[in-house]
Amino acid sequence: MLVRKRLGGPLAKYFDQTLEDEFWGEKSWEKAESKIIKEATQMVISKSGISSQNIDCVFAGDLLNQCISSTFGLREINIPFLGVFGACSTFVESLSLGAISIEGFANYVLCATSSHFCSAEKQFRFPLELGNQRPPTSQWTVTGSGASILSKTGNGPYITNITLGKIVDMGIKDANNMGAAMAPAFIDTLIAHFEDTGRSPNYYDEIISGDLGYIGKDIAIDIAKSKGYNIKSNYNDCGVLIFDKNSQDTHSGGSGCACLATVFSGYFFKKLKEKKLRKLLLIATGALMNSTSSQQGESIPGIAHAISIEL
Amino acid sequence: MLVRKRLGGPLAKYFDQTLEDEFWGEKSWEKAESKIIKEATQMVISKSGISSQNIDCVFAGDLLNQCISSTFGLREINIPFLGVFGACSTFVESLSLGAISIEGFANYVLCATSSHFCSAEKQFRFPLELGNQRPPTSQWTVTGSGASILSKTGNGPYITNITLGKIVDMGIKDANNMGAAMAPAFIDTLIAHFEDTGRSPNYYDEIISGDLGYIGKDIAIDIAKSKGYNIKSNYNDCGVLIFDKNSQDTHSGGSGCACLATVFSGYFFKKLKEKKLRKLLLIATGALMNSTSSQQGESIPGIAHAISIEL
Repeated sequence: MLVRKRLGGPLAKYFDQTLEDEFWGEKSWEKAESKIIKEATQMVISKSGISSQNIDCVFAGDLLNQCISSTFGLREINIPFLGVFGACSTFVESLSLGAISIEGFANYVLCATSSHFCSAEKQFRFPLELGNQRPPTSQWTVTGSGASILSKTGNGPYITNITLGKIVDMGIKDANNMGAAMAPAFIDTLIAHFEDTGRSPNYYDEIISGDLGYIGKDIAIDIAKSKGYNIKSNYNDCGVLIFDKNSQDTHSGGSGCACLATVFSGYFFKKLKEKKLRKLLLIATGALMNSTSSQQGESIPGIAHAISIEL
Repeated sequence: MLVRKRLGGPLAKYFDQTLEDEFWGEKSWEKAESKIIKEATQMVISKSGISSQNIDCVFAGDLLNQCISSTFGLREINIPFLGVFGACSTFVESLSLGAISIEGFANYVLCATSSHFCSAEKQFRFPLELGNQRPPTSQWTVTGSGASILSKTGNGPYITNITLGKIVDMGIKDANNMGAAMAPAFIDTLIAHFEDTGRSPNYYDEIISGDLGYIGKDIAIDIAKSKGYNIKSNYNDCGVLIFDKNSQDTHSGGSGCACLATVFSGYFFKKLKEKKLRKLLLIATGALMNSTSSQQGESIPGIAHAISIEL
C-alpha cells in the first residue's frame, strides 16, 4: 500500500492499493498513517485466508513518537501486540522476531510497519507549511505500509537466516544525510552475515537494502569493495527503486519504515512467489536518533538487520 | 539503579546504586538517562560474570521519542540490538522476547529499560520550569534503569510462562490518569493468563503489576473482583511500592519503564534468589499514546504483558 508521490513511480503497479492524497479522509496525518497500517494489515490477513484468531502475535512499529501509528492503527486487531522500534530497520526487525517466534511457540505471526511523509517531516524536521528547501542528500519518507504473515508451515519462500545488527555510530551528524549515517551499519551487518554463513555476495540473486538512497548506496558499494566484497552487480536499495529519479524529485531517494516494507511486500515478494527470484538478502537500515538528540549535538547511530529469503 | 526522589523511599536499600541528582554529570536529562541505562547494563554484565561477547542480543527500549535513551546509551555495547517499545510494559516485553529467544537460538539475552522524570515530563507534559500543579491522579516517572540477563542454563529463578497482551482501549482520555487507562489491559492479560494456564490467583505468592499506581491498583482489584478473581490479598503494584506515600509526595505513585524494572531487578529478584518468594506473576502495563495523540483528542490505548517467574 502506498501513497504515490505525484501519482507515479516505477513500482506503483505492484502495490495492492495506491492513495490519491495524504489524508485518506482523516483529519490529521497521524490518523491517516494509522488508517494506512490498519488497512494494510486487514488486507494481508484477508489475502492470507488465515483467521486473525489463529495469529499468535503481531510485531509492529513505526517512526512516530511512541509508535502511535502502529498502536492506534492496530488497537482493534485483537491479537497480542509486541511493539518494536528500529527506525527504518523496523520491518526486518519484525520479520526476524517473527521468524524466531515461528521457530518456537507461534504458528502464525503478523509483521507490519508504516511511515508517512507529512507526519515524519513535521516530527523530525520542519512544519511542512514552511516549505523549507531540502538538501540534495535528503530522502523522501514513503507514505505507506507493508505487512507480512509468517507461517510455521507452507511452501515458501522461507526465511533461512537472520543476522541481527549491532549499533554502529561513525559520528555523522547531518540529519539530512541519513544514507551516510546508516551505510556503516549496513556494511557491519552485511559482513557479519557473510562471515556467519560462509556465503559470498554472488550466493544471492539480489542483495537489497532499505533505505540508504542514492548517496548511501554508493557509499555502501565503496566501503564493501574496500573490505573485499564486490556487491556492485547484484545490490540495490529500496530507496533507489521506489521513486523515479527524473520525474519524481526526491533527491537521494525514498526512506521511512514503509519504503522497504512496501518494496519488499509489493515487489520482491511477488518475484519470489513467481520464482523470478530465488535467493534474496534483505537488509533494513535504521537511524536511531530523534529531533532532541540532533538539537543536543549528537551524532546519528545506525543499525541494520538482515534476513535471507529463499525458495 | 535509581535516582531517589528526595533521597529516600522504602526500597532504596535494595538498589545497586542511587544517584544524588538528575543530571549525573551530563549536560541534559536525555544524556543522563542514556548514561543511567548504560551503567545499569554494564553493572548487570559485570555482576553476571558473563562476557558481553557471549551475549547473543539485547532487547531494550524506553519512553523517549524513538527510544533514544536505549540507542544512545547502548550504542557502544557491541551486542546485536533489538529495540522494543511498549511504554511502561517495555521491561516485561523485553523479558518475554528474551525468553522466546532463549528457548531458541540464544544462550544469553540482556534485557534493559530506563526512564527519567525530567525527560519524560518535558516530553509528555509541560516544561518543568513552568512548575505546573500535578493532579492527584498523576504518577511520578521513576528516574532509573533496570537490567536483567536471561540464560539458557542455570539454577533459576525461571520464566515459566508468558502471556502476551492485546491492546485494550476503554476510551480514557486523561493523560494524567494513566492508572485508569491501563487497568483494563492489566485485567485482560491477567484473566488470559489464568485461562491459559488453569491457574488461579492463589497459585502465586505475589502478583505484581507496574505501573498502575494507587488509583489504578484499586480499579484493578475492583474489576478483577467483578470478573470473579479475588486478588486483594496477594496483589500489589510497583508504582505503590517504590515511593513512600507520606514522605514522598508523588500523588498516585510511581510510573515509567524503570519503575517495574528497578523494583523487579532490585527487590523481587533478590527475594526470589533468597527463596523468600517462590511464585511471582509479573505484569507490566503500558499506555500507548504520545503528546500529539492527546492533542488530537485521542483516547489512551493500554497494554499489559505477563510473565510468571518461579523457583
